[in-house]
Amino acid sequence: MEIIGKNFIGNQLSAMGNVQYKTFDPVKNQENKTVFTEATSAELEEAVALADAAFPIYRKMKGVQRAAFLKAIADEILNLGDDLIHTYRSETGLPEDRAEGERGRTIFQLQLFAKLIESEDWRNNISEEAMPERTPQPKPSLFKTHIPLGPIAVFGASNFPLAYSTAGGDTASALAAGCPVIVKSHPMHSGTGALVATAILKAAQKTGIPNGVFSNLNSKSHPLSHELVKHPNIKAVGFTGSFTGGSALQESVFKRAEPIPFFAEMSSINPIALLPGALKEKQDEIAKKITASIVLGTGQFCTQPGLLLVIADKKTDEFIETLGRLLSKMGQQGMIHPDLIENYLRQSEKLNGLKGSIVVQERKDKIQDKQVTPKLSQISGEQFLANPIYQEEVFGPFSLLVKCKNLEELEQVVKSLKGQLTGGIFAQPSDYELMDPLVTAFQSKVGRFLFNDVPTGVEVSAAMTHGGPFPSTTDSRFTAVGPASIYRWVRPITYQNWPEDLFDKLV
Amino acid sequence: MEIIGKNFIGNQLSAMGNVQYKTFDPVKNQENKTVFTEATSAELEEAVALADAAFPIYRKMKGVQRAAFLKAIADEILNLGDDLIHTYRSETGLPEDRAEGERGRTIFQLQLFAKLIESEDWRNNISEEAMPERTPQPKPSLFKTHIPLGPIAVFGASNFPLAYSTAGGDTASALAAGCPVIVKSHPMHSGTGALVATAILKAAQKTGIPNGVFSNLNSKSHPLSHELVKHPNIKAVGFTGSFTGGSALQESVFKRAEPIPFFAEMSSINPIALLPGALKEKQDEIAKKITASIVLGTGQFCTQPGLLLVIADKKTDEFIETLGRLLSKMGQQGMIHPDLIENYLRQSEKLNGLKGSIVVQERKDKIQDKQVTPKLSQISGEQFLANPIYQEEVFGPFSLLVKCKNLEELEQVVKSLKGQLTGGIFAQPSDYELMDPLVTAFQSKVGRFLFNDVPTGVEVSAAMTHGGPFPSTTDSRFTAVGPASIYRWVRPITYQNWPEDLFDKLV
Repeated sequence: MEIIGKNFIGNQLSAMGNVQYKTFDPVKNQENKTVFTEATSAELEEAVALADAAFPIYRKMKGVQRAAFLKAIADEILNLGDDLIHTYRSETGLPEDRAEGERGRTIFQLQLFAKLIESEDWRNNISEEAMPERTPQPKPSLFKTHIPLGPIAVFGASNFPLAYSTAGGDTASALAAGCPVIVKSHPMHSGTGALVATAILKAAQKTGIPNGVFSNLNSKSHPLSHELVKHPNIKAVGFTGSFTGGSALQESVFKRAEPIPFFAEMSSINPIALLPGALKEKQDEIAKKITASIVLGTGQFCTQPGLLLVIADKKTDEFIETLGRLLSKMGQQGMIHPDLIENYLRQSEKLNGLKGSIVVQERKDKIQDKQVTPKLSQISGEQFLANPIYQEEVFGPFSLLVKCKNLEELEQVVKSLKGQLTGGIFAQPSDYELMDPLVTAFQSKVGRFLFNDVPTGVEVSAAMTHGGPFPSTTDSRFTAVGPASIYRWVRPITYQNWPEDLFDKLV
Repeated sequence: MEIIGKNFIGNQLSAMGNVQYKTFDPVKNQENKTVFTEATSAELEEAVALADAAFPIYRKMKGVQRAAFLKAIADEILNLGDDLIHTYRSETGLPEDRAEGERGRTIFQLQLFAKLIESEDWRNNISEEAMPERTPQPKPSLFKTHIPLGPIAVFGASNFPLAYSTAGGDTASALAAGCPVIVKSHPMHSGTGALVATAILKAAQKTGIPNGVFSNLNSKSHPLSHELVKHPNIKAVGFTGSFTGGSALQESVFKRAEPIPFFAEMSSINPIALLPGALKEKQDEIAKKITASIVLGTGQFCTQPGLLLVIADKKTDEFIETLGRLLSKMGQQGMIHPDLIENYLRQSEKLNGLKGSIVVQERKDKIQDKQVTPKLSQISGEQFLANPIYQEEVFGPFSLLVKCKNLEELEQVVKSLKGQLTGGIFAQPSDYELMDPLVTAFQSKVGRFLFNDVPTGVEVSAAMTHGGPFPSTTDSRFTAVGPASIYRWVRPITYQNWPEDLFDKLV
């Protein structure tokens, strides 16, 4: 299947611009062949106008019809077959099982939202009968429900070309809510994005979804993204990416005449505290788990454990040695894009170059071009507390181990942290009595709090929170994963004194 | 009971500053006697530090204990007896029944939140069991709940000294959630605020609530408010007031390093469309209802109907005449503060002075000092669409009637509107067939949508939405009234792989 390099303005292909780019194959170390044309301001305007016109129609469609659309998207993504897997791999260098796994997750998410909206339960309707005889004031009838906000802009993530991009969680939840979606395609995997866009538009056509409910804009440069989030007819934004990128877009959102919800998932180093009892009794098991979590997918996960907090003692030193040894045995791994390798090396070397940093593990032998190996560095609690630079995310298989003097200092370290998607404690019964203040400190910092478990692997389910205090996200009151993520895109409305026989005019 | 003019920094009285002010009695047309001392930056710092220290203790208290606190606040407010009613009236000029009614509403709200948190249902807990045998990945146990954000800053409204101020809906919902509250007292009714603050602190002492969970700061000038919303340890803001005031605070919130939820209820003109069938069949009844709603409480309600939309025809002209006549019979009324009278006259005269404005009703005979009468003005749909100034709120008993050429123009007018707390349609069966596009247009603009009913009178119940698209509020996804308003101040957290016997460490 040929990959389309044009923009999808609703169901029209368009390439009015003259700025072009290609994606990169990190394994072949060369550009892929499709030429993508960046969307122009006029194309963006057209996409938003179509979304705006489609909104009142789309949002009044029955839940089962929007569900049929979502299920058809899942089917059409599967129908892309090996073309999708090949394109995904050529734009990321990720292995086949990861590509297939992520496709499965994407399809599962679409089906989950389809199921959610087949019933109207998700709207949390509340009906209160009139009490005309009440004194001193009669009570009117009230019916509360939830309705969609309007057209949503979605910015996908570099590290999840499928599950957090074109038809990923943000798009699926917004379409489920009844919001049109305009995706700004991620320039590292615009081919994967274009294939998925094709699938979405085919599904729309098959299920009678109006033109403009979905558009897909190519762009490698920033101005288009800012134009998109500043557009008056865009009513909310979903972003998954870096702190720098998210913060820049947020600045633009703040300049709008009408403020809108800006949900960005941005940055997290996912601290794990390893308490003395745990290191004494389960040292090897913990070291294995953490090693696997650090290197999983070359550490290219927002939940990668980038910060390990320990208390100085003999067992701890043994643990550090064990962890270093296990990491040293991990092989070389590619990354999704050469820019990410460069960023990984620069960021990890920046931290390692600071006074007081001890490099525990870093491969000194020759590393193949375009490959990286895991790194583990160590600093003291005091150093960590003195310099906020240690809280910067190193995207890749890097972890910073903070050796604290005692439990009180470890608590101070947790209290000093910025907000995180996840945090965790490894503890054994001998630790339990001492860990209450630490638990309290963690609760204020994280969206998901783990016990004797690693943060990688985000379950897609109702009990999941994938979110957390700033800067892990811009609004900790929402989750980006699971059915509750739909509530980012809807608002309550109350119908007062409407007779029931007119209710069909309202939904 | 003597009114305290000092600041309540937790349970300590403090007056370190040298800027003072008094409140004003609009009936006696003179200042009240209590001298209030504005809080200093140092006092603000101390209040926030106390709130921050109290937070981890307060949020871990059992729901029944926080509920006891809320119920005790209600009791202590009642115990203030006539002193509260007198002070309220001396600072607003509002009649006794209104004072007592608002006190009743305030107490009802506190009791409603107490009842809500006596059970843990409001946390929407979701528990998922581990599936260790699942392939390819085992599933960990997940437990999702909601926890409070941290210390909240509350800015009360000029027009509701009790129900939307010191112990009003924002404070009650935040305290219920487990958040400490720092109130910036409204300078028009700081005496009422001080009495209520006394009640809150008494209740805190009686129910074992830690010092710092509540503070009350006096200030008539703006810098302190901005300092408060910019403070790094303030984790959310609740504001009820003007568009100008809310927008200014929002600017400061946007400058924070860490973005926080800023819920402001600001401005609404509450459009009501009066369709031809309704005006033909129910003209007198509608004119009476609307007149009463316009003048209720001298129009000093955020839900006052400030915009009436009609379609030109003979019956409409009769209606306009009827409405004008009814309004002309309404007596003179006071307002809460001379500044509000000045603002009412300035704003209404500004709109009336525009080219094309027809003054339908405005008393020309001599009006007593410090009193106002209702005003009704009329413009065409075309004029309304041409000038956004007609959308400015006139706080007081003013309504602007827009006479549209036809239903299409009326729809255009609704589509041109900014977001509103409420909107409504008066219709009879002969109108039903034509009103679908109008209904759709209204749904995108309002938080509460009325049918053959007026917007004043906001029910405090689970089915209420008191919120709406910007600028009626800054985040349409929340309500300021009813039990759901608690969700402004909490966030989800998921506990992964925690054994049940450690759950008591988490709540």
